[in-house]
Amino acid sequence: MSRIANAALRAKVMGAEDAAALIESGMTVGLSGFTGSGYPKAVPLALAARIEAAHAVGHPFRVKVWTGASTGPELDGALAKVDGIEFRLPYNSDPIAREKINSGQMDYFDMHLSQVAPMAWQGFLGPLDVAVVEITGIREDGSLIPSSSVGNNKTWLDRADKVILEVNRWQSAALEGMHDIYYGTALPPHRVPIPLVKPQDRIGEPYLRCEPAKIAAIVETDAPDRNLPFSPPDATAKAIAGHLIAFLSHEVAKGRLPASLLPLQSGVGNIANAVLSGLLDAPFDKLTSYTEVIQDGMIDLIDAGKLTLASATAFSVSPEAAEKINAGMARYRNHMILRPQEISNHPELIRRLGCIAMNGLIEADIYGNVNSTHVMGSRIQNGIGGSGDFARNAYISIFMTPSTAKGGAISAIVPQASHVDHITQDVQVIVTEQGLADLRGLSPKQRARTIIANCAHPDYRPALEDYYRRAQAGSYGLQSPCLPGEALSWHQRFIETGSMRG
Amino acid sequence: MSRIANAALRAKVMGAEDAAALIESGMTVGLSGFTGSGYPKAVPLALAARIEAAHAVGHPFRVKVWTGASTGPELDGALAKVDGIEFRLPYNSDPIAREKINSGQMDYFDMHLSQVAPMAWQGFLGPLDVAVVEITGIREDGSLIPSSSVGNNKTWLDRADKVILEVNRWQSAALEGMHDIYYGTALPPHRVPIPLVKPQDRIGEPYLRCEPAKIAAIVETDAPDRNLPFSPPDATAKAIAGHLIAFLSHEVAKGRLPASLLPLQSGVGNIANAVLSGLLDAPFDKLTSYTEVIQDGMIDLIDAGKLTLASATAFSVSPEAAEKINAGMARYRNHMILRPQEISNHPELIRRLGCIAMNGLIEADIYGNVNSTHVMGSRIQNGIGGSGDFARNAYISIFMTPSTAKGGAISAIVPQASHVDHITQDVQVIVTEQGLADLRGLSPKQRARTIIANCAHPDYRPALEDYYRRAQAGSYGLQSPCLPGEALSWHQRFIETGSMRG
Repeated sequence: MSRIANAALRAKVMGAEDAAALIESGMTVGLSGFTGSGYPKAVPLALAARIEAAHAVGHPFRVKVWTGASTGPELDGALAKVDGIEFRLPYNSDPIAREKINSGQMDYFDMHLSQVAPMAWQGFLGPLDVAVVEITGIREDGSLIPSSSVGNNKTWLDRADKVILEVNRWQSAALEGMHDIYYGTALPPHRVPIPLVKPQDRIGEPYLRCEPAKIAAIVETDAPDRNLPFSPPDATAKAIAGHLIAFLSHEVAKGRLPASLLPLQSGVGNIANAVLSGLLDAPFDKLTSYTEVIQDGMIDLIDAGKLTLASATAFSVSPEAAEKINAGMARYRNHMILRPQEISNHPELIRRLGCIAMNGLIEADIYGNVNSTHVMGSRIQNGIGGSGDFARNAYISIFMTPSTAKGGAISAIVPQASHVDHITQDVQVIVTEQGLADLRGLSPKQRARTIIANCAHPDYRPALEDYYRRAQAGSYGLQSPCLPGEALSWHQRFIETGSMRG
Repeated sequence: MSRIANAALRAKVMGAEDAAALIESGMTVGLSGFTGSGYPKAVPLALAARIEAAHAVGHPFRVKVWTGASTGPELDGALAKVDGIEFRLPYNSDPIAREKINSGQMDYFDMHLSQVAPMAWQGFLGPLDVAVVEITGIREDGSLIPSSSVGNNKTWLDRADKVILEVNRWQSAALEGMHDIYYGTALPPHRVPIPLVKPQDRIGEPYLRCEPAKIAAIVETDAPDRNLPFSPPDATAKAIAGHLIAFLSHEVAKGRLPASLLPLQSGVGNIANAVLSGLLDAPFDKLTSYTEVIQDGMIDLIDAGKLTLASATAFSVSPEAAEKINAGMARYRNHMILRPQEISNHPELIRRLGCIAMNGLIEADIYGNVNSTHVMGSRIQNGIGGSGDFARNAYISIFMTPSTAKGGAISAIVPQASHVDHITQDVQVIVTEQGLADLRGLSPKQRARTIIANCAHPDYRPALEDYYRRAQAGSYGLQSPCLPGEALSWHQRFIETGSMRG
């Protein structure tokens, strides 16, 4: 049965190649997709083929790509492989695109995820020529049933001159009614308070709107999202989760957190997922989540009756969890809401709700400046994502990481961060498998002593203590002692020798 | 005539020495004061004398000091001079205190100004033993007429076990009715939208409340605020203002800003003031300001009928301007509102209003990471203040600086910032007297080319171009090319030779 209940729109169904032919070189294309879910699966592949054919006959063909966040191999991977992306925003985790960026062949504008939609409206990014948006279905009145991510879809549909829809039958029909699309945003001076006060509040409508005249093509698909399995938590991840849960328990005992905690935000990945798994056995009930993505660990918490509601902008789950939620969506949708990312990540709401933010990092320095994005200061890993939206506005901003990487060749705690995404003011707790550093209310020197003692790996601790001692003796000032001639030497050593060890 | 209309409270008037005797060593003291206005002028001096006397007979005596932001020599200066401050938050510009911090004798916790009050409530900073708050007067019903700054006074009065008031007759009686004290804040999960949608909205009440039983002492004073003269704008400041106003005019012409702009936020200092002066002759009308402090330039704009309303948390004016607004307060208060700093700096409101943020910097690197606080990465200048609150949430986040300092020995544009307060995502425009770099929507490499070409001083431009070229050849990754072995060498050279020049 067709997922397109509107007859006039059903007439616009065509093949992916015909739809891709509407996209010309030099255009800016806004695509759906957030952490591997809800991205278009057919048109980008057809566009990549079109680009490859153009290149084969010597014609330049590249587009500017705007998305929600990361997508799948059929989008970023395919377009990057054929050198079809000139400029990319706002977040990428595709390995081929990453390589193109780090070899200088693709310009990548890494933005705070909450700011993408407002900045697209602001105008300086230029016009949006085409939107390519995956949806679950089209209702008789022409309204669109969103898919497994919302991301910036509302904005792309509103802002684009021309719209291509992919109607994906793989997505559960029971997604209908689960989303909450807020249509109250505006440019200043016309902005008003966003009326959300609890994670479970619905402030919008369950459907996306799109002016029918703008819809140039509809493509039907049935391909699954790029859902990757999570690794089962290893000893390191379990130790990090243990320290973190002990800290949260301590805060509850001190009366500084309610017994049901505050809405949890959790970054994506195995360690974040291990923390969520750890909450299964923790003494907290009636948890809520106000976050970017719903991961496996949250599904388990919902199943266990521990998590009453998860608000996000996308799913980021394993194939098994995807199957489970698709099958049980009629029940799960009482416990889940997907919203536009400008709402899931809005500073106003994160601050109001008092989220407990839990994000990963690449490295932290002894003062707790956090690098989330650039390996050795220059090589982009993924991007800042929503970590800046959450870390600065959180009730407690927590960062977690194994204390070493690359088999011990890299210390996650360094004398000075080679790139900074989160300044000391926005980093209140750091956790490694070695322990937890509660940095709230501490001066830089107090932070340094705590981070080195609690978080650094024992193999690197003496060298950090030695640097910090010498910095105190030889620093230009003593607020945050530093030896500029040596502060980044660990990174230089890694580049030269393959290890930070002295 | 007494400024204390409540008879019961009038009975609590005493000398500053008697009031200071209520403060014991080890206590945490919350004091009023923000950028040199509205700070207590008598009790801190008496406390400093008490500390000095204790030290003279070998008794340890130090206190923890919380304020709104910077204060005056009678507070930070006097207490720092006698080594009376063990720990200080959130912002300091006092030279004696700065020296104690940078020589490692005082712990300084430099916070986002919007977060001081919420974090004081959050509990991890510990209890607040005493509040010492300057006010303009006490009404018959016991409510307090605020002074020339509001800062964190509401929170100190609510949170302290014991309250000492300084009633300052020097402050204009006509201040009464000008303030807007919002009593709707709470800890999560009880936070609700803050109902302010325009800078001129009044959402609170004109008075501070304080439980009379907590008031332990009242001291009467008549000393002026530390009001410092502004330097008249020099050629550099005028050039910066010119570039900035040309940019704003261009944005209006492009339809990306309304003709009356959006609410202006302006950092403190001579260059910020020069920009405000430049607006006197600029083609913008019906301006508004939503900012931390009201400076001379804003008074001139109000006088000229160009600025309809300035919302802030404090005055920071010259002695002449202080005299002028004190004399004309009955008129000025139609154009001015002072609020608690958690409201003047609230991310929710800054984002909603779409402020145009204009802040100073110490150095920016070629990618536009901004250091606002630490000279040579380690020596604190003042603090981050509200710049982080505004820069991340602004509609346009602008940073401005002369391209060199110390007679040319320091370049404000460096290969890598020695400390980062504002990450590239939060720095959209950089202005020096050399020119303006509009970085919106640019990738890191596009930003580097623009900043070097438009903002760097010609004396340093070739060395920056050389570094950037070599970084592109030898970097670990090419998203943000970097040579860790050399990135901070300019700072090391300055420390060793007194100049960044090669």
